[in-house]
Amino acid sequence: MDFNLNAVSFIAEKNFSRLDIKKTYDIMILGGGPAGLTAAVYCIRKGMSTGIIVNEVGGQVAWTSGIENYMGYRHINGVELVQKFKEQVLQFGIDYEEGRRIESVSSGPMKGVVLDDGRSFSSRALIIATGKDMRRLGVPGERELTGKGVAFCSICDAPFFSGKRVVVVGGGNSAMEAVHDLAPIASRVIIVQFLESLTADRVLIDKLESYGNVEVLYEHEVAEIRGGSSVESVEVRDRKTGKTSSISAGGVFIQIGLVPNSGFVKGVVSMNGSGEIIIDCSCNTSEAGIFAAGDVTTVPFKQIIIAGGEGAKAALSACEYVMRLT
Amino acid sequence: MDFNLNAVSFIAEKNFSRLDIKKTYDIMILGGGPAGLTAAVYCIRKGMSTGIIVNEVGGQVAWTSGIENYMGYRHINGVELVQKFKEQVLQFGIDYEEGRRIESVSSGPMKGVVLDDGRSFSSRALIIATGKDMRRLGVPGERELTGKGVAFCSICDAPFFSGKRVVVVGGGNSAMEAVHDLAPIASRVIIVQFLESLTADRVLIDKLESYGNVEVLYEHEVAEIRGGSSVESVEVRDRKTGKTSSISAGGVFIQIGLVPNSGFVKGVVSMNGSGEIIIDCSCNTSEAGIFAAGDVTTVPFKQIIIAGGEGAKAALSACEYVMRLT
Repeated sequence: MDFNLNAVSFIAEKNFSRLDIKKTYDIMILGGGPAGLTAAVYCIRKGMSTGIIVNEVGGQVAWTSGIENYMGYRHINGVELVQKFKEQVLQFGIDYEEGRRIESVSSGPMKGVVLDDGRSFSSRALIIATGKDMRRLGVPGERELTGKGVAFCSICDAPFFSGKRVVVVGGGNSAMEAVHDLAPIASRVIIVQFLESLTADRVLIDKLESYGNVEVLYEHEVAEIRGGSSVESVEVRDRKTGKTSSISAGGVFIQIGLVPNSGFVKGVVSMNGSGEIIIDCSCNTSEAGIFAAGDVTTVPFKQIIIAGGEGAKAALSACEYVMRLT
Repeated sequence: MDFNLNAVSFIAEKNFSRLDIKKTYDIMILGGGPAGLTAAVYCIRKGMSTGIIVNEVGGQVAWTSGIENYMGYRHINGVELVQKFKEQVLQFGIDYEEGRRIESVSSGPMKGVVLDDGRSFSSRALIIATGKDMRRLGVPGERELTGKGVAFCSICDAPFFSGKRVVVVGGGNSAMEAVHDLAPIASRVIIVQFLESLTADRVLIDKLESYGNVEVLYEHEVAEIRGGSSVESVEVRDRKTGKTSSISAGGVFIQIGLVPNSGFVKGVVSMNGSGEIIIDCSCNTSEAGIFAAGDVTTVPFKQIIIAGGEGAKAALSACEYVMRLT
């Protein structure tokens, strides 16, 4: 049942075509996490002409190390599970596009999707499964130094900061998890927390005391990240005094939560205050023929198997919608 | 990642305790299909004191041969997937009971569950994931001869009827699939259909012509199944004339649809006209602290990955409920 990653790449090369701007798809799927990839398998097996636009395969799953709550695998790492999902989609032969962002989406009898490279595609139904992305600080230096010391995924990137001074921004669970990934290998970890206390689970906070190299700056915020070819310092502002100081650091992990990747569909479908797309139990959005699934929606819990189930639901709802049209 | 079934049995023996009537469980899960087993993994990992009562492990999945739409496996058979699910639950150590039916359930601050052997258990929250079961004919001989020629699962049992005359009751997709499992090996297949035509998908009906040993009795119904140590004949009634005749047969496959396993909870939670438990998108039923997931509910589509996702949702909703209590 197992296969190696080379085999996956081989099948991948062989079995997919790029999206065709001249084609009218029955269903276009946006997103390549568990929801989008599951939706793809269901749409193809129903005989729908299906396209899928993926920015990053696996979404948040690819940032996860050990997974023990995806049924069927007692323990599997995120990258491995994502490859299995991708492989399962590509075995059917699908029009597939990777590494592209969605610029905008339009509703109507024919749904339109415009990509960041200007190409546009049309389909009878649309499934939005673009998931969530890391929230950015929006300060000078953040964008320029991303991948050069500014990081958003401690599971992926912590090992690169061995022996270095590192700033972790945030005080919730994901920030504490980054600290636990970093403290054993970094020379020093400085937590910059906006509020006057940490908001993570007690058990994660208590564990901080076991490290001798962690300090917390409460009620501070990052004003700027400075560096040339890589991060050199982080400018922080004391929120009580307004005074700015500089922390020498080789890395900054920004762990201030997640935001839905739904900006491109603003004004087209209804969303809640957090930017999540509002769906009913069958994954219908407010717009006929536009369905949504997974972490980008109001589904109550965000888990791989839940996103997978929601992707299947959205796909079957979309198939019913398309079949009613013809 | 793979393991053999002996290893599973070994772990199974080692890691679970039977349910304890003296214990007050945080969460009791009813059902051992994809929804119930997924719920179990989530409840245990959240640190809840959890029990699970299973009639048949895997539910409908165990009757399925090839599965290609469960994400993570390009192709797997039902029994193998079910074993992986069970193994994943039992690795954590859980109070587990197999081969028991639920007699009744009661609501209130403490939920009660009574088994068919008279033992009763109490818990703060309840997750009902008892799935669907094959619909029975309710005719004389059906119950007595079940397992002695009366069968409900052609995938499981067709091979036992090689060279025999077999009756298939029903005219929908599952009946046609039984015919396709049986016709190549049985000496003759007689379809007994209540209506004046078959209701299965065209493609399945068309394929019947390729067999020389299949006949259909339209507008007939089964009146009785006769036999001693095994099925010997099926008494059928012509619905137009009322005349009864006898078909000599060594087997009867009853394929007349599915019914929710929800009888034991009638009057406790709200159901729709088909006996499905009505849930909202968070798997809440009409009764506080009673949650439901999977095919026993009003969830719009019945699929393994959807049932799994619903089980996870029900578990996380139940955990939140229990945590709010304390």
